Amino acid sequence: MRKLHSVGRVIEESLKFLRLPSVIKVPVTDSLGLYSAEDVYSSFKLPPRPKTVVDGYAVRSRDVEAAGPSTPVVLRKIEGVIRPSSKEEMVLPEGYAAKIETGALLPEGADAVVPIEDVVEKEDRVYIYKRLAQWENVSLPGEEYDTDIRIVGQGERIQPHSVAGLMLEGKETVNVYDFSASILNIGDEIISQTFFRPYTHIFVASWLKTLGVNVSSIDFSPDSVEHIVSWLKKRKEWLTVLIGGTSMGGHDLTVQAINKLEPEYIVHGLALQPGKTACVAVKDGRLILAISGLPVAALSTLEVFFRPLARKLGMQVPLLPTIRAKLTRRISVKMGVIGFARVRVYRENEEYYAEPVMLGGSGALASLLRGNGYVIVPEGVEGYDEGETVEVNLYREVENIGEKNI
Amino acid sequence: MRKLHSVGRVIEESLKFLRLPSVIKVPVTDSLGLYSAEDVYSSFKLPPRPKTVVDGYAVRSRDVEAAGPSTPVVLRKIEGVIRPSSKEEMVLPEGYAAKIETGALLPEGADAVVPIEDVVEKEDRVYIYKRLAQWENVSLPGEEYDTDIRIVGQGERIQPHSVAGLMLEGKETVNVYDFSASILNIGDEIISQTFFRPYTHIFVASWLKTLGVNVSSIDFSPDSVEHIVSWLKKRKEWLTVLIGGTSMGGHDLTVQAINKLEPEYIVHGLALQPGKTACVAVKDGRLILAISGLPVAALSTLEVFFRPLARKLGMQVPLLPTIRAKLTRRISVKMGVIGFARVRVYRENEEYYAEPVMLGGSGALASLLRGNGYVIVPEGVEGYDEGETVEVNLYREVENIGEKNI
Repeated sequence: MRKLHSVGRVIEESLKFLRLPSVIKVPVTDSLGLYSAEDVYSSFKLPPRPKTVVDGYAVRSRDVEAAGPSTPVVLRKIEGVIRPSSKEEMVLPEGYAAKIETGALLPEGADAVVPIEDVVEKEDRVYIYKRLAQWENVSLPGEEYDTDIRIVGQGERIQPHSVAGLMLEGKETVNVYDFSASILNIGDEIISQTFFRPYTHIFVASWLKTLGVNVSSIDFSPDSVEHIVSWLKKRKEWLTVLIGGTSMGGHDLTVQAINKLEPEYIVHGLALQPGKTACVAVKDGRLILAISGLPVAALSTLEVFFRPLARKLGMQVPLLPTIRAKLTRRISVKMGVIGFARVRVYRENEEYYAEPVMLGGSGALASLLRGNGYVIVPEGVEGYDEGETVEVNLYREVENIGEKNI
Repeated sequence: MRKLHSVGRVIEESLKFLRLPSVIKVPVTDSLGLYSAEDVYSSFKLPPRPKTVVDGYAVRSRDVEAAGPSTPVVLRKIEGVIRPSSKEEMVLPEGYAAKIETGALLPEGADAVVPIEDVVEKEDRVYIYKRLAQWENVSLPGEEYDTDIRIVGQGERIQPHSVAGLMLEGKETVNVYDFSASILNIGDEIISQTFFRPYTHIFVASWLKTLGVNVSSIDFSPDSVEHIVSWLKKRKEWLTVLIGGTSMGGHDLTVQAINKLEPEYIVHGLALQPGKTACVAVKDGRLILAISGLPVAALSTLEVFFRPLARKLGMQVPLLPTIRAKLTRRISVKMGVIGFARVRVYRENEEYYAEPVMLGGSGALASLLRGNGYVIVPEGVEGYDEGETVEVNLYREVENIGEKNI
């Protein structure tokens, strides 16, 4: 067994060689869930001019200064109604009032709106019984939308509010990172499908997709260094994931193949349990990740190495929700190694408990399906005791969690 | 202003009339993020037979019972190597050892594996210096995958581990809910695009997509009841969202149009701030939701009414992550109304603070872009005081949150 490398250190070292994914332009309407490659700030105000928030009459507030319950001010009515869809611009003369609908822009000169219930309309006159402050019942420019608000930041995952802001700015396209991946599934036993249908590649692809990664190809390879090398040489994606063939003892075909590319950076063996056979390399500024074909070891590498790496690189991939829960049994991990322990969180008497699920068996898809979260045990810690409260990262819901009563 | 209806009550009442979305069959490889319409349990064990977890020699443990450091047991070698890809089945005769690679299934009769480093190989013999327990270095059937594990539950959103499990079960398709929506954007001012490009429909569509809803159409309508009715009559989707035209005072065109369909259930006016003009109806067991064209009022209805409704119906739509933070200013809400208050959470001296962002202005996209979360103030509460700790639902990341040090 070779020396195992500290995951934290490998992240820091990889970052020195990695570059950000290349930048592509996509239509704003297709940008949801992608990662922005630019900061976009708002550039104008809404409403563009003062806007009424009630149905009523637009007036000049000085005209109604003298109004009172027994001393109405009488104003002349402008013909017609100003609607939100009105396009004509007009000036409100002194001594006049203009009927206006909620959401419409005030005519020039007007600086307040009397609600319809506070006026008496009589032929071409309106009687106003209450004085108004300037800008009363009016939304001023900038109140709904203003300049210099960050609509989306570089590296931020584009969400509904950002899509709305980009649309409002009149943008047709937005620059995003081409956060793409290709996957190679390696192994004669994968090709021959000896005793089960292979699925780790689909698991890894699905996991990457939930992060917004565009998985552009999934291929298969026999246990052949030449085959792997020739596939690797054709890659254009930012991330390449090789699954299987990483055994640290016997045939580390995958590692041999990566070495043939003469990467800028390569380490084989992470201080991570499970997931220690992973190999991390950087070639031409792009990441190559060789991970175990065993699903839990693969997930451990993705969660403990890849997710934080992507975040430190500046791609704001989401974090899993966390919950604090009491351990029902001890979790033990070798000193100097990060532990990735699957647990099942459940609720009993208003308290959350985390039950470790099969600490051995890195191949155990069963442990992922039986559990709903994982606990990371840091390098310097040998484990957590029964009864200790730990932070659990949840990938599946705790039953009956979060049913908010309204 | 008409009577406002309690959101909780409207949820309970709607549930009496709503039916679940219809069920469709999709390929497992396209099922990620959709909602399962069935419970799927695992049906077999892995490994199917005992499997070695080390490279070494498969033996019968009784054959090596007498082995010790100075009294090796000598076994005859079977020719060849058993690999994970090997398909031939063989029986290990007594007194024999078979070379085997990690991950391969044991030959019949063998019940332990001596690690390669613990044997001495000499021509067609192997010398074993240590006794072994039965099943030592062996993974037994069921350890990696077992029968009766829930791969996915009815109403559960399909995630990577469930896709993996379905693949492993050899399933080509899975039954999911046709959780679909169509959107109609209503208003002469939307069509005329008076002073800004409409965007609330895209905001709503994006929000629904992040929940895994299939938004199959987005259309526009002028302020015309006939037009809206004829569009509504063509709907096949489980959810119909009408945006705009819900004003409780003036022309509630949308509500008039929905009434013409003679729905089983309809209420207009929710005790929700902002979002009070929303109209909720059920027609033929499907949901019709008429919401404000103002983005924050629309979001308030979606978050406070739709998300919990969908969950209570049995569609396990995800909850937003939450964080507890101290209010920097008071949030006030009218008694008897649920408040949907936008806040910006930030970190200072290891403490989280929530700053209310523009409590007025339901039209304020600015408040969504300036903030990163919202606080729900329940019906029976008039608000929260400055300095009070509140639970914030986060829709955007708090800067520097969750950078776990490894």
